[in-house]
Amino acid sequence: MGLKFEDVLIESLPYIRDFSESVMVIKIGGNAMMGPEAAANLMDEIVQDIVLLHFVGIKTIVVHGGGPEINEKMEKMGKTPKFIGGLRVTDDDTLEIATMVLVGNINTKMVSLINKYGGKGVGLNGVDANLIQAKKKKSQKVVVDGNEEDVDIGWVGETEIINPKILRMMIENGYIPVISPVAAEKKGHMLNINADTVAGDVAAALGAKKLIMMTDISGVLRDVKDKNSRISKIEVSEIDKMIEDEIITGGMIPKIRGAEVAVRSGVEGVHIINGSTPHSLLLELFTDIGVGTMIYKKEDEKEEE
Amino acid sequence: MGLKFEDVLIESLPYIRDFSESVMVIKIGGNAMMGPEAAANLMDEIVQDIVLLHFVGIKTIVVHGGGPEINEKMEKMGKTPKFIGGLRVTDDDTLEIATMVLVGNINTKMVSLINKYGGKGVGLNGVDANLIQAKKKKSQKVVVDGNEEDVDIGWVGETEIINPKILRMMIENGYIPVISPVAAEKKGHMLNINADTVAGDVAAALGAKKLIMMTDISGVLRDVKDKNSRISKIEVSEIDKMIEDEIITGGMIPKIRGAEVAVRSGVEGVHIINGSTPHSLLLELFTDIGVGTMIYKKEDEKEEE
Amino acid sequence: MGLKFEDVLIESLPYIRDFSESVMVIKIGGNAMMGPEAAANLMDEIVQDIVLLHFVGIKTIVVHGGGPEINEKMEKMGKTPKFIGGLRVTDDDTLEIATMVLVGNINTKMVSLINKYGGKGVGLNGVDANLIQAKKKKSQKVVVDGNEEDVDIGWVGETEIINPKILRMMIENGYIPVISPVAAEKKGHMLNINADTVAGDVAAALGAKKLIMMTDISGVLRDVKDKNSRISKIEVSEIDKMIEDEIITGGMIPKIRGAEVAVRSGVEGVHIINGSTPHSLLLELFTDIGVGTMIYKKEDEKEEE
Amino acid sequence: MGLKFEDVLIESLPYIRDFSESVMVIKIGGNAMMGPEAAANLMDEIVQDIVLLHFVGIKTIVVHGGGPEINEKMEKMGKTPKFIGGLRVTDDDTLEIATMVLVGNINTKMVSLINKYGGKGVGLNGVDANLIQAKKKKSQKVVVDGNEEDVDIGWVGETEIINPKILRMMIENGYIPVISPVAAEKKGHMLNINADTVAGDVAAALGAKKLIMMTDISGVLRDVKDKNSRISKIEVSEIDKMIEDEIITGGMIPKIRGAEVAVRSGVEGVHIINGSTPHSLLLELFTDIGVGTMIYKKEDEKEEE
Amino acid sequence: MGLKFEDVLIESLPYIRDFSESVMVIKIGGNAMMGPEAAANLMDEIVQDIVLLHFVGIKTIVVHGGGPEINEKMEKMGKTPKFIGGLRVTDDDTLEIATMVLVGNINTKMVSLINKYGGKGVGLNGVDANLIQAKKKKSQKVVVDGNEEDVDIGWVGETEIINPKILRMMIENGYIPVISPVAAEKKGHMLNINADTVAGDVAAALGAKKLIMMTDISGVLRDVKDKNSRISKIEVSEIDKMIEDEIITGGMIPKIRGAEVAVRSGVEGVHIINGSTPHSLLLELFTDIGVGTMIYKKEDEKEEE
Amino acid sequence: MGLKFEDVLIESLPYIRDFSESVMVIKIGGNAMMGPEAAANLMDEIVQDIVLLHFVGIKTIVVHGGGPEINEKMEKMGKTPKFIGGLRVTDDDTLEIATMVLVGNINTKMVSLINKYGGKGVGLNGVDANLIQAKKKKSQKVVVDGNEEDVDIGWVGETEIINPKILRMMIENGYIPVISPVAAEKKGHMLNINADTVAGDVAAALGAKKLIMMTDISGVLRDVKDKNSRISKIEVSEIDKMIEDEIITGGMIPKIRGAEVAVRSGVEGVHIINGSTPHSLLLELFTDIGVGTMIYKKEDEKEEE
Repeated sequence: MGLKFEDVLIESLPYIRDFSESVMVIKIGGNAMMGPEAAANLMDEIVQDIVLLHFVGIKTIVVHGGGPEINEKMEKMGKTPKFIGGLRVTDDDTLEIATMVLVGNINTKMVSLINKYGGKGVGLNGVDANLIQAKKKKSQKVVVDGNEEDVDIGWVGETEIINPKILRMMIENGYIPVISPVAAEKKGHMLNINADTVAGDVAAALGAKKLIMMTDISGVLRDVKDKNSRISKIEVSEIDKMIEDEIITGGMIPKIRGAEVAVRSGVEGVHIINGSTPHSLLLELFTDIGVGTMIYKKEDEKEEE
Repeated sequence: MGLKFEDVLIESLPYIRDFSESVMVIKIGGNAMMGPEAAANLMDEIVQDIVLLHFVGIKTIVVHGGGPEINEKMEKMGKTPKFIGGLRVTDDDTLEIATMVLVGNINTKMVSLINKYGGKGVGLNGVDANLIQAKKKKSQKVVVDGNEEDVDIGWVGETEIINPKILRMMIENGYIPVISPVAAEKKGHMLNINADTVAGDVAAALGAKKLIMMTDISGVLRDVKDKNSRISKIEVSEIDKMIEDEIITGGMIPKIRGAEVAVRSGVEGVHIINGSTPHSLLLELFTDIGVGTMIYKKEDEKEEE
Repeated sequence: MGLKFEDVLIESLPYIRDFSESVMVIKIGGNAMMGPEAAANLMDEIVQDIVLLHFVGIKTIVVHGGGPEINEKMEKMGKTPKFIGGLRVTDDDTLEIATMVLVGNINTKMVSLINKYGGKGVGLNGVDANLIQAKKKKSQKVVVDGNEEDVDIGWVGETEIINPKILRMMIENGYIPVISPVAAEKKGHMLNINADTVAGDVAAALGAKKLIMMTDISGVLRDVKDKNSRISKIEVSEIDKMIEDEIITGGMIPKIRGAEVAVRSGVEGVHIINGSTPHSLLLELFTDIGVGTMIYKKEDEKEEE
Repeated sequence: MGLKFEDVLIESLPYIRDFSESVMVIKIGGNAMMGPEAAANLMDEIVQDIVLLHFVGIKTIVVHGGGPEINEKMEKMGKTPKFIGGLRVTDDDTLEIATMVLVGNINTKMVSLINKYGGKGVGLNGVDANLIQAKKKKSQKVVVDGNEEDVDIGWVGETEIINPKILRMMIENGYIPVISPVAAEKKGHMLNINADTVAGDVAAALGAKKLIMMTDISGVLRDVKDKNSRISKIEVSEIDKMIEDEIITGGMIPKIRGAEVAVRSGVEGVHIINGSTPHSLLLELFTDIGVGTMIYKKEDEKEEE
Repeated sequence: MGLKFEDVLIESLPYIRDFSESVMVIKIGGNAMMGPEAAANLMDEIVQDIVLLHFVGIKTIVVHGGGPEINEKMEKMGKTPKFIGGLRVTDDDTLEIATMVLVGNINTKMVSLINKYGGKGVGLNGVDANLIQAKKKKSQKVVVDGNEEDVDIGWVGETEIINPKILRMMIENGYIPVISPVAAEKKGHMLNINADTVAGDVAAALGAKKLIMMTDISGVLRDVKDKNSRISKIEVSEIDKMIEDEIITGGMIPKIRGAEVAVRSGVEGVHIINGSTPHSLLLELFTDIGVGTMIYKKEDEKEEE
Repeated sequence: MGLKFEDVLIESLPYIRDFSESVMVIKIGGNAMMGPEAAANLMDEIVQDIVLLHFVGIKTIVVHGGGPEINEKMEKMGKTPKFIGGLRVTDDDTLEIATMVLVGNINTKMVSLINKYGGKGVGLNGVDANLIQAKKKKSQKVVVDGNEEDVDIGWVGETEIINPKILRMMIENGYIPVISPVAAEKKGHMLNINADTVAGDVAAALGAKKLIMMTDISGVLRDVKDKNSRISKIEVSEIDKMIEDEIITGGMIPKIRGAEVAVRSGVEGVHIINGSTPHSLLLELFTDIGVGTMIYKKEDEKEEE
C-alpha cells in the first residue's frame, strides 16, 4: 500500500490548496446517520472526516438536525410526534423535549466526539450570543376533510437575522462550532427551526465557500431507479426545468430550493451527499468524480447581477 | 425619590471603580431559585443584576446547578432520584436526563434571559473546547445495615483539568459565559459534576476577584436561630475552629471548605449569599454592610507563602 | 434605604447599557460652578459624577471654561476685564493671564480632582498635538456714541481645524481628557477661544453621542418666570420659531445655536443642564424625566439628508 | 558648501544609527536659556534641534524648569522670591504662581514651538495620569543667627512614584511629551518639584539611553579659569574623588550627584552641556568631540552588579 | 567645521520631516556605478547614503541593474553580448548567466554592503513570493539589410502584475528590500526584465513618494554641451514639446517616458541623477538646488483627473 | 481506488494533527537529487510534497545544497573542483561561482517551483537580514607526502550566529523560505558554508519540531549489504557505541553527529531519508513504518538536563 499512500495525498493537494482557509458549513441529519438504524460507527467516521477538514486548513462549522432522536424520546415519554406539511407540530412539551434532545444530548455528544478526534468543538444554538433571531412561522394551510384550513403548528420558527460574529471569533481561533437548530424570537420564547434552513442561512451569512448537506440519499438521480444516473452538477438556472421535468421531485425539492437560495447568496457550491456512504465527505470534496450532486452558479451570471 | 437616585449611584462608585475589569464567577442554584417553589420573577431579577454587573465593567461568568429541575423531570419519567452522601447516584438514564435538563433546558433559558436584558450570553458546558476534563469519582463509603460498604455512584465526576482559554476569549470579547456542570472524562464518556465545585475551579483557574455562591441561605449565622447573627467576614484560618465550635455545620461545611480552596488558590473573596433575597447580588457587592458571608485571606498571610 | 439601593441601580440599567462605550463631551463653566460664590463642594461632586460615567463605560471628555477665575486674577493684578458683544477683549497681558489661569490653574486642579476620585485625567489644550488649530476672529461691530465701529477684540480665536487623534488615543486607553479653551493660530500665536464652541467642535469631530453643557440655568423655560415650565426636548427644526416667539432669548440664543450646529454635525443629543443642581449630570442622563433641555434631531430627517 | 553638506550627514550616520528608536530625556532650564537675558532666538534653535532628534528616530521627552520666569512674575505681583538651601520657599501664593507660570505659560509656549517646527508636542505635568506622585519635603536645616533651625519650605515636593505608562503611549505614537515639574501628593495637594530631579527620575523610569541636562555651564572644567580644560567623560566611580579634590564644586555637585543616580539606575549616559552654545545638543550627540561632560558607568562594573 | 555641522543638519530638517515614513524606490545601474571603470568606493558611498535615508525614517527599496557585469561575465565564458533595440538578446545560456550575475552576485553583494553600514537588507527578485509576474516580450521589428524583420529576442519579459505585499511586510518591519530584475512567466520560465521598468512598476504599485533613477548622466541639459544648463524640474505636460524640440533625445527619451508613467500612476516625483557624483542622492533630496532633473505633475492637473 | 483514497487521508490524520503549526526544516541536496544523473521529475515531486506539508499546516523551511551543480559549472569554466577533508577548497573564483550557482540559479529555480505548485516561496541566503553570521574556518590538517600540513581551504565558513527573526516573520505570514548556504563574516566577506550544518543550526535556532535530511541514502543500515536492515530510530545516547561498532561509518558519521547536535539543542527528531525514493518525505512523516532513520532523545533524559 506504500506507494498508493503518497499518491492519494498528492492527488488531493490541489483541493487542499484551493480550500485552505475557506469556510465550509456541514449539515448532518436524517435517519441514515442519526436514526436508530444508523450504522454503528458512522457518526465516529463522519466526525473524523470533519476533524481532518479542520486540520488541512478548512474552517468548519457543523449544523445538526435530530428528528429521529426527538421522535424516539417523545415516544418514550408517551407523546406521539405529529407533522403538517413536513413541519413538526410543536406544542410546549414538544418544544421542551426537542430543545433538550438537540442542545443537551446530540450537540454535546457531537462536541465530545470532535474533541475525541483532536478537534476543539464548541456547542452553540441560536440563542447563544443571539446567533439566530427567529420569528414564529405563520399558520400552515392544510386540507382537512376536503377543506383548506389554517393550522397553527406551534413553536416552529424561521430565521430573521443571523449574527455571525461569534462564529467568526470561533473559527478564527481554531474552534469547530456545532450548531443546534433552536433559536429565540424577539421576546425570548424558544422556537424549533429547520436544520437545513439554519445551515443555509449560516453559510450565506458567512459567505462560506461550500455548504455540504449530508442526507440519506446520494444526490439527484436522472432516473430514480438507476443508482448510476447521478447528476454531479446542477447550475441554478436549470433547477426550474428539472422540477418541471420531474427529475427533481418530492422531498428533494425543498433541499434543492434551499441550495439555490444559498448559492444565490454567494455560497460557491452546495453539495448534497449521502452521509451513510463511508467517507462521502472526503470523496466529494477531494476527488474529481465526487459522490453527490453539487448546485452552483455560473461565473458570468454572477457578474451580471 | 429623585434625590436618592444619584446618591445611590455615587455611593456605589468606589465599588464600581474597584471591580472594573475584574473577573467574577457567580454560582446560581438551589431550591429557592430553581425549585418549583421559587418566586415567580426571581430568576429574571437575578439575571438583570448579572447584566448590570457586566455593564459596569465586571467580567461575569455564570455557573448554574439544577438539582430540583432534574428531580422534577426524572419523576415525570417515572424514575426516583437517589442520593448517597449528598451525591446523585447517576446511572445511564439519569445521566442522560441530567445532561438534557442542565445543558438543553436550564442553560438555554438562562442565556435567553441574559440576552433579553441586553447582555450577550453564551452557553457552555465542560465538553466545549475541553473546558473541564473530569474523572469518574471513586466509590463512596456508605453504611448499609450497619456495615460500611463501597457503593459506585455511577457517572459522577470531579474536575481534573480546567482549560480556561475559551472563557478568556469570551469575556475579553464582551460575552457572558453560562456554564453547565457536565464534563467528559478522557475517553469521552459524559459525567455529571457538582456545580459548586465547578464554580470554585473556574474561579481559581481564572484568578477571579470574586466567587459568589447564590444559595438558599443567608451566609453563616453565629446563632442559627437568630437571623441577625450573620457573620459578614470569615478569615480562612478561622474556619477549622468554627467547625469545631459547631458554628459552621451540616451542608454549610462543604460550601465553606470549597470557598477555602478557592481563596487559597488566589480568589480574593468568596461570598455566600441568599439568592432568594431580592437583589442580594448588588447589595453584597455594592454596599459596605452586605447581606451574606465573605470568606477571605489576610494579605500578610498571602505574602508569606 | 437598603431596598431602594438596588432599585436605583436596576432602573439605570437600560441607560447604562445604551451609553456603554459611547463618547460624551461635558462642558463645565459659568459663575455657578466656578465663580467665587459657587457652592463649596460643587466641583468635587461634578467630578465624582464624571468619574462615575467613566466607570460605567462612557468615554468621557471634559471641556472647561474659566471666565470668573480669569476676571478675579486680572483684578488682583490691577487689570479691568473688558467685554464686547460677550467676547473678552484680549490684549497681550490678558491673553497671558487667561492662558495661565485656564491651563496652569483650573485644568490642573480638575485633573487632580479626577485622579482623586479614581479616574485617570490628562490635561490638554488646543496646542497639544495641534488638537485645535484656530484663527484670529475678525473685528466686531460695536455701536460707540451711536456710530457702528469696527473694534479689534485682540487675541480671540475661532476653531479652524480639530485633530481628534490624540483624544481618540486617550479615551481608547482609559484616560479622561480635560481640555482648556486656548489654541494657537498657524504661525503659533496663542488665542483665547470660547469654551462652548470648543465643546461643540470636539463633540462633532468625534461623532460624540452626547454633548452636555453644564451652565447656570436649568435649560429652556417656556415661561421664564415659571421654573416648572422647562421644555425637556427641542427638535432642531423648532428652534427658529422658538426664537421668533421669544421663548429662547438673550444669552440662551448662542447656546442653542451651538447645540443646533453640533446636532446637525451628528451629535445625537445636546443637553443644557444646571450645573449647580446637585448631580444634575446623572439625573439628566439616567432618568426618564431629566432636569434640563435636550436638543436633538428627528431620525427620519437625518436620513433624508 | 555643497560638498560639505553630505559629509556632515554621512559623519553623523553612525550616531543616528546607534540612537535610532532610543529614548532620550532633555532637561531645559536656567537663566541662560529662559532668563530675561537669554539670546533672542535661542529657544527656537533648541526646539529645532529637539525636533530634528525626533525625525532621526529618537524618542524625545522634554522636561523644563522655569525659575527665572517664576521670579519675574512674582516680582510683578509684588512678591519677593525666597530660597533656602537652593530650594524655593513655596507658600500658597507662590505655589499658585509657579504652577501657572510652568504649566500655563512656559509649557504651552514650548509645545507651540515644537509644533511650529513640525513635531507633535503634548504638554504634561506630574498630575496628568498620575505621572508623578510626590510627597512634601521635610523641613530643611538652616543656620539662623548661628543656630541651626528646622524651617518648613512649604509646598516643595520630591518624587515618590513615576507612572511612565502615558509617556510610553505618547512616544510610541510619535508625540514629544513636554513635562512641567509640578505634581500632587497623595491627598491631591499640588507640589513644586525640582526639574533636574524630575528629568533624572523620568529617565530612570523609562530606562532612557541618555539624559541631557542643558544648563548655563559647559560641563565640568578641570580648571575653572580655563575654558579649554573641560573634562569630556567622567566614570561614576571617579566622582567622589573629584569632589574631594574640589574639581567638582558648588552648584555642580547636586547636578553630578543627580547624574550619578540616573546612571546607576540604568541610563547609559548623562550629558551636562551649555544650552546657550548654539546647537550644543547636536554637537554633543552627533560628534566625537562633544561640547560638554558625560557621566557614564563602565560596562564591566555594570555586569558585576 | 563645528559651526557648519549643525547648520547642515538643521537645513535638512524640513526635508527629513517631509520625507518621514514615506516610501522611496532607488534604481541603481549603469556603467558609471557598476562598470569596470566605476570609481573604487562609489558603491560603498551610495549604499551609505541609502542607509542614511533609512535611518532618517524613509522606507527605502532598491532596484539594481547589472548590464556591465553581465557583459563582463559572458565574455569570460566566451559569449558575445548582443542587443536589439537596446534590449539584450537572451538565449538560454545568456538567461542563466544573467540570472546568476544579478541574483547571485550583484544582489548579494549589495545586501552585504547594506548590512555593513547598519541597515538590514534582504535580497529579492521577481520570483520571490510572486513579486513580479511577467510575460515574454513580443518579437522586435528590426531593419536587416534594408528590410524590417521580426526578431525574437528570447527570454526578455515585461511586467504583468506586481504583488507588493512582501515589500510592504518588509519595509514595515524595518528591512531594506533589494530587487533583481528577473521574474517568471505564468508557467514558471525565468525572464530577464528591464531594471528601469521594474523600478517604475514597483514605485507605482506601492504609491511611492519618490522614484530616484541613479544613472550615468546629470539629468536633462537644455544644451547638451553646457553642463550648467541642467533643467531641475519638468512638468509631465512639457515632455512632448521637449522631445519635439530635441531637448530630450536619444537614450534619455525612454527614461523620461518611464518617469512620466510613474508620475501619472501617482508617484510624487521621479528624479534622474548622476550616480557617479558623490552623494548625489543626498544632495538631490536634501537641498533646494538639487543635482538632477525631477519629473512631476502639477497638483491641479492631478485633481482634474 | 475509491475506498482506499479516504483511508489514506484518515490514516494520516493523527500525524497531520500532531504536526499542525509546527516548524520543520528540510535539507535537500546531494547527487541523487541535484546531480546530472538525478531522475527527471524528482525535484518537481519533492517540491510538491513540501507544498503539501505547507497546506496541512506545517511551517516549512527549505535549505538546499548544490555541490554537483557547482562542480558542473566550474568545469564548464575550466576550473577543477578540489576538496580537502570533504570541504571544498574555495579560492576567490570558486567562491564567486558557488555563490552565483547557489543563490542565483538553484535557489531561484526552487522558489519558482514552489510557486508553480501553489506555495509562496521566498529565496534567502545567510546575508539577508544577517540571517547567518559566519566566520572563516581555520586551516585543515592534511597529510601531504606523509607529513601533516596546515592547509588554508579558503573562503569556507562556519556559523557563528543565527538571527531567525526574518524566518519567523516569513513563516508566520505564510511564506516558505528557501535558504542558500552562503553567509558573510563580520567585515562583509562572503563565505561558503556546509548546507547540512546550516539546516541543523536553523532548526536549532527556531526550536523546530523536525529536521529532515534528504540525502542519497536510506538512513542507517545495520548491515550495509542488506537494504532491509534499516534502523528506524536511534536514541542519541546510542550513537557513540554504534560508531565504535562500525554500524555508523564513513560519510554517515558527520551527518549523524550533526543530527545529534540538533536533537540536543531541542529539535524533536532528525530524519535521514533517501530523497530519490519517490515521496519519501510523506512516507517518513505520515506513516508509522517510515522509510529512513530518525535520531531522537528520550523524554526523561531531556528533563534531567
